[in-house]
Amino acid sequence: MAEYSRLDHQMMALALKLARAGRYTVSPNPMVGCVIADHQGQVLGTGWHQRAGEPHAEVYALREAGSKARGAIAYVTLEPCSHFGRTPPCAQALIDAGVSKVIAAIQDPNPQVSGKGLAMLQRAGIETRVGLMREQAKTLNRGFFSRIVHHRPFVTLKLAASLDGKTAMANGHSQWITGEAARLDVQHHRAKSCALLTGSGTVLIDDPSLNMRLTATELGINTTPRQPLRVIVDSKNQLTPRHRLFSLPGEILLANKRASPHIYPRSVYQWQCHDKGPRVALPALMAHLAQRGISNLWVEAGAALAGALLEHKLVDELVLYQAPKLMGDKAKGMALMPSLSHMDQATNLSWQDVRMVGEDIKLTARVCYQDPGK
Amino acid sequence: MAEYSRLDHQMMALALKLARAGRYTVSPNPMVGCVIADHQGQVLGTGWHQRAGEPHAEVYALREAGSKARGAIAYVTLEPCSHFGRTPPCAQALIDAGVSKVIAAIQDPNPQVSGKGLAMLQRAGIETRVGLMREQAKTLNRGFFSRIVHHRPFVTLKLAASLDGKTAMANGHSQWITGEAARLDVQHHRAKSCALLTGSGTVLIDDPSLNMRLTATELGINTTPRQPLRVIVDSKNQLTPRHRLFSLPGEILLANKRASPHIYPRSVYQWQCHDKGPRVALPALMAHLAQRGISNLWVEAGAALAGALLEHKLVDELVLYQAPKLMGDKAKGMALMPSLSHMDQATNLSWQDVRMVGEDIKLTARVCYQDPGK
Repeated sequence: MAEYSRLDHQMMALALKLARAGRYTVSPNPMVGCVIADHQGQVLGTGWHQRAGEPHAEVYALREAGSKARGAIAYVTLEPCSHFGRTPPCAQALIDAGVSKVIAAIQDPNPQVSGKGLAMLQRAGIETRVGLMREQAKTLNRGFFSRIVHHRPFVTLKLAASLDGKTAMANGHSQWITGEAARLDVQHHRAKSCALLTGSGTVLIDDPSLNMRLTATELGINTTPRQPLRVIVDSKNQLTPRHRLFSLPGEILLANKRASPHIYPRSVYQWQCHDKGPRVALPALMAHLAQRGISNLWVEAGAALAGALLEHKLVDELVLYQAPKLMGDKAKGMALMPSLSHMDQATNLSWQDVRMVGEDIKLTARVCYQDPGK
Repeated sequence: MAEYSRLDHQMMALALKLARAGRYTVSPNPMVGCVIADHQGQVLGTGWHQRAGEPHAEVYALREAGSKARGAIAYVTLEPCSHFGRTPPCAQALIDAGVSKVIAAIQDPNPQVSGKGLAMLQRAGIETRVGLMREQAKTLNRGFFSRIVHHRPFVTLKLAASLDGKTAMANGHSQWITGEAARLDVQHHRAKSCALLTGSGTVLIDDPSLNMRLTATELGINTTPRQPLRVIVDSKNQLTPRHRLFSLPGEILLANKRASPHIYPRSVYQWQCHDKGPRVALPALMAHLAQRGISNLWVEAGAALAGALLEHKLVDELVLYQAPKLMGDKAKGMALMPSLSHMDQATNLSWQDVRMVGEDIKLTARVCYQDPGK
C-alpha cells in the first residue's frame, strides 16, 4: 500500500481535531470527526459527532459539502457505520453522495461490525484505505475502545500528593494538599469522564461533592455539559443519604454487597455485587460500568481503593498532582499494596506528560502491567 | 544610581559564565569570573579562578588585557580582595593596571573584609559599582555564602523514589530504583560538591562506594577533578574498615560519639561530636564541616538521616529523581518526620526545576522554612 500524502495527514489531523469537540458530550458514543476534501486539498465540508442520537460526523460534513462531495475524498477518524442505529448508516450516505475515496483512521473495534462499513463502500466501487494516524485515533477514543474490546472502562486514577508521596495526614484529612489551579484542572478531567469513582472512606472523611462544576462557557461548548455518573463503592453500607453528594444533581451508582437499609433519593441507583467475598468485586463493577456505557472512568479514591484497583490491574493511567510540600512518613500514602521483596515486582509506569499546573507539578503516566493482556 | 546598560549586563553574564568553569576545582574558595572590557564593549581580557592558591580571576584577565587595561572597565562576579592571602590583593592589581571603573556583582560576604576591596579602589580614584546581577552571583556561590554567613554548608538532599514516594523496599534494599542516566547525573552533582554525606545505615545495607567516578574528560576540564570528602555519620560505631568505601581513594570523615575501636586507614579522619544525646548532633557536624571549608554538601541518606536533617532545618534544597514505578505503601518512605495534625505544618517547598533525566523525572526544589532565619 502506498504511503499517505502530506495532504492526507493534514486532513486526518483536522478530522481528529474536530472529533475532540465532542469530548464533553458524546459518550457513550465515540468521538468522530470527518473532513470532505477535493484532491487538491480544498476542504469542502467538516463535521463532528456531538451526542448519541444526533447525526454522525459524516452527515454534517456531507451536508456542508453538498453536491461538491461527488468525486471527493472523505477522511473519517473511525470506520463509517454500516447499520441502522438511531441514525441511518453513514457508509450509505457516503455512497449516495458519490465520494470517490474514503480514508479511515481505524476500523470499528466492535467485532460484530468491524470492517463492514468499509466493505459496503468497496462494494459500491469506492476506494477505501484504513490506518492513517491510527494510534492517534485509538488514543482519542481509548475509553470507547477499552469498553468495546475489553468490556471495562479506561480507568484513570487521580492522585494528589506531597513531594514525598503523601496524600493525607495521619488523621485522614486531605483538603487541600494541592493548589487551586490543580483543583480546576481536576474539574476539566471530571468533565471529560463518563463517570467518577470513589470509596465510602473518602465520603465519610471528606464528605465531597464529587461533581462537575464547570459551565458550558468555562468548557467552551455551546450545549449543556453532562454531569458524570458518580460511582461510590460502599461494600459495608456505611453511608447514609445525609452525605452531601446524595442531594446534589446528577445520578449516583451505589455499589454494595446487599441493598442499603436507607432510603436514598431516586437519583441514586443501587447495584449489588453478588460475587463471593466481603467487598464489592472491582472487576465485576468495571464490567457493569462498561455495560452501562461508561467508557472513561476517573477515580478519586483513598489508599485502600486505589491500591485495590492497582492490585486488580484495573488502572490504565495515573494523574498525579504533586504539591511543593513534605508531609513526612507518618502521613498516609497513595496506595495500599502488598509488600515487595524484589525491585522487579514494582509496577512499571510509562511517563506521558509532565507540566506545571499552578504551583503544583502534574505527572501523567500509563501503567504497564507485566502480562500483555491489555 | 543610574541603571546598568545592556552592555554591562552582557559583560557580567560573561564573567558569571567564566566563573562557573571553576565549579569542580575551586573550593574552598568561591567561583569568580572577571572580564576587562573597553567602554565600547570590546573584551580585552577574561579570567576565572581555578584553584585555591592559584591566581584570582582578575589577575588572569589583567594579564590578557595587558596595557589595554588602562582606562578600561573591570567586571567581577565578587568584590575584589583587599588583603594578602596566598596571592596579592586583586584590588591593588586593578589599581596598578589603571582601570577606570570596577563593577562587582556582589560584596564579599565575609564581614571582616566586606567592602574593603571596593573602598581600596575608591581611594585610588576608581569608580566602583556593586549589585549588577547580584542574585545570580549569590546563587552561583550559594555554598560559599552559606558557609561564610551561616557557618554551615549549603545542603542538598538527594532522593531517588518511585512515583509513590518510596525509596527502598521493606527489606531496605534500594539498588536500583532509578535508571542509568539518573545515576550519571548524580555523579555530576557529586563532582560539584565539596563533600558527600551518608549514614551508617546506608553503608550497612548497600555498602556503597560513595565516590565521584567521572574523569576530567567526562567533566570537560583540563585538570584532575577533586574527590569530594565523604562524611559518614556512625553514632553507634556500627561500621568497620571492611566496608568498601574505606578502601577507596579519597578522604573520609567518620562522625561518631566516641572513637571507633577499629583501626581505619590513614585517609579516614574520625571526628567526635561531644554534644549531649546518643547521636551525632547534626548542627554541630555542619558547623565542623564549614570550619573544614566545606561549602556544598550533597546528601545521599536513608529515611532516618534525611528526616533528621529536615527536622533540624538543615536542608536547603531537594533533588528528587522520580522513577516510573509504583512500590506500594509497605516500601520505605523518603524521610522519617514527626506526625502532622494540620496541613500548615507541612514543610513548604519552592520548585526550581523539573526535567527528564533518561527515564526518570528530576525535580529540584528549595526548602522554605517558616522562620526567616535563612
